[in-house]
Amino acid sequence: MRQAGRSLPEYRALKRGRTILELCRTPELAAEATRQPVTRLGVDAAILFSDIVVPLAGMGIDVSIAPGVGPVFAQPLRSASDVARLRPLEADRDVPHVLETVSLLEAGLEVPLIGFAGAPFTLACYLVEGGPSKYHSRTKALMYSEPATWAALMDRLTDATLAYLRAQVAAGVDAVQLFDSWMGALAPADYRSRSLPWVRRILQGLGDLGVPRILFGVGTGELLDLMAASGADVVGVDWRVPLDAARSRVGAGVAVQGNLDPAVCLAPWDTLRASALDVLLRGGGRGHVFNLGHGVLPDTDPAILARLVELVHSWEPGVA
Amino acid sequence: MRQAGRSLPEYRALKRGRTILELCRTPELAAEATRQPVTRLGVDAAILFSDIVVPLAGMGIDVSIAPGVGPVFAQPLRSASDVARLRPLEADRDVPHVLETVSLLEAGLEVPLIGFAGAPFTLACYLVEGGPSKYHSRTKALMYSEPATWAALMDRLTDATLAYLRAQVAAGVDAVQLFDSWMGALAPADYRSRSLPWVRRILQGLGDLGVPRILFGVGTGELLDLMAASGADVVGVDWRVPLDAARSRVGAGVAVQGNLDPAVCLAPWDTLRASALDVLLRGGGRGHVFNLGHGVLPDTDPAILARLVELVHSWEPGVA
Repeated sequence: MRQAGRSLPEYRALKRGRTILELCRTPELAAEATRQPVTRLGVDAAILFSDIVVPLAGMGIDVSIAPGVGPVFAQPLRSASDVARLRPLEADRDVPHVLETVSLLEAGLEVPLIGFAGAPFTLACYLVEGGPSKYHSRTKALMYSEPATWAALMDRLTDATLAYLRAQVAAGVDAVQLFDSWMGALAPADYRSRSLPWVRRILQGLGDLGVPRILFGVGTGELLDLMAASGADVVGVDWRVPLDAARSRVGAGVAVQGNLDPAVCLAPWDTLRASALDVLLRGGGRGHVFNLGHGVLPDTDPAILARLVELVHSWEPGVA
Repeated sequence: MRQAGRSLPEYRALKRGRTILELCRTPELAAEATRQPVTRLGVDAAILFSDIVVPLAGMGIDVSIAPGVGPVFAQPLRSASDVARLRPLEADRDVPHVLETVSLLEAGLEVPLIGFAGAPFTLACYLVEGGPSKYHSRTKALMYSEPATWAALMDRLTDATLAYLRAQVAAGVDAVQLFDSWMGALAPADYRSRSLPWVRRILQGLGDLGVPRILFGVGTGELLDLMAASGADVVGVDWRVPLDAARSRVGAGVAVQGNLDPAVCLAPWDTLRASALDVLLRGGGRGHVFNLGHGVLPDTDPAILARLVELVHSWEPGVA
């Protein structure tokens, strides 16, 4: 469960007096934050504690994470010359702390470790807007108005992301997840021509490494078939699409991950249990990674998450 | 086009030194703001200048609209006793300025006037959270945890909304639109059982008045069939679903409205033209109200919107 750790009291203790980027840059602490939800909740995999802007910061881009806001960039990218200044990522030089965190975790972690990166479109949304935005209108305006600049931006972000994920795998992660959080803002035709080609280059560019590749977004109901054609082994699905409908859009040969509404974890246990069982039934027990459809909400009780993990572990297909 | 007026320089001039709620409460100004986009853009209908929180303010709820933020409520609703304090809306007493605005417009407006209101779920999201929110988690927690309180809240908002819309029709509006902006945050099963029954009560409760009823939301790809069964004559569709696919989900007998991505209005004319023609073609020329899939973005050039209106007016089905 993505970001499950951030709702835990032990994470809040670890974070006290530090910024998220400081945590990400301190391998002992990032490794500890990675382990916490595994220890507390009993989940089947750990997800590397990091943030999608970490490689951008490593490339020398001035970014901070403002509490309650999100990533804020001192100099938004707006022109071809801004894009030309984006330099390639060299993982050993630019993100050594991430690779060291992975090495530390490889030593003692008893579950598989999932590495991750942000996808080019989502990174571009942050870089062009200068921070989180509701409609990504400057980004889309650039995408429509300056196709060559857009392609150059996506090329550079793709190269950096691919290098970053390959380095994570070399350091020891067992699977990778590509977060394209904002992809659901695109109409299918735009996603197909203005974003997917670069997603595909990243996922197919990892093919020789033999690790499972997960592609995640929200609001992707109309994009699931395209996501399944990206080279992903697993497609994340949010709670807006019933999982059986999602499976049929994704097609055979690609697994699905999801898709409980995180808000249901704020419900009484009986409601949560019924919703989780519905997800499991619709998932069909094969080719389905049970997960929330998005991150854990801050007010979620860790005890209820642990109980949910137990429920999923005890469930058997065909025995409702 | 919803809110088209807010991107116009003449609207900014009218608004200078005033809050949105002040504008809404001053019939001469609200009427002028309603007329502006019709005059400037040549659209086929006017939409009443107002805000979905206007009836709530009229019911004595302490709400302001914070610039760049949205509605902010001094005392969020959190409990059954909070809900019990919500009093019924009496249109003549609580929103006389809205009815007077409609009367003023009836005098000289050369196009039909569309009235509107917020739907109960969307109003509840604002009331329970106390303002705009990303995940509506307190609202959903209440919805799941206290079904009786939820039903009472939805009942009261439904009664108020129905009274409000009936009064608008009595004052002279020619059609009504129910804005359920946040409905796309709900999984289909939750929408069906925890929101749709009240939407249906409002729309069916307007049936005897003989005015077209439009139901609008965003991120509704999986909800279109349910929306079509709500009593709506027209279902709004955002740009995430190709309009021909939306039409087949909505089914025969209900029209669609939409669905150009507002961000495409920031693109060069050729790109905008091609996207608009694609929408028209997929709409099929019958049972389709051409519109943007959401509100006009602030940086949009009014001249390009006027050109878009001309294009749509000049288009003929079967002649691409």
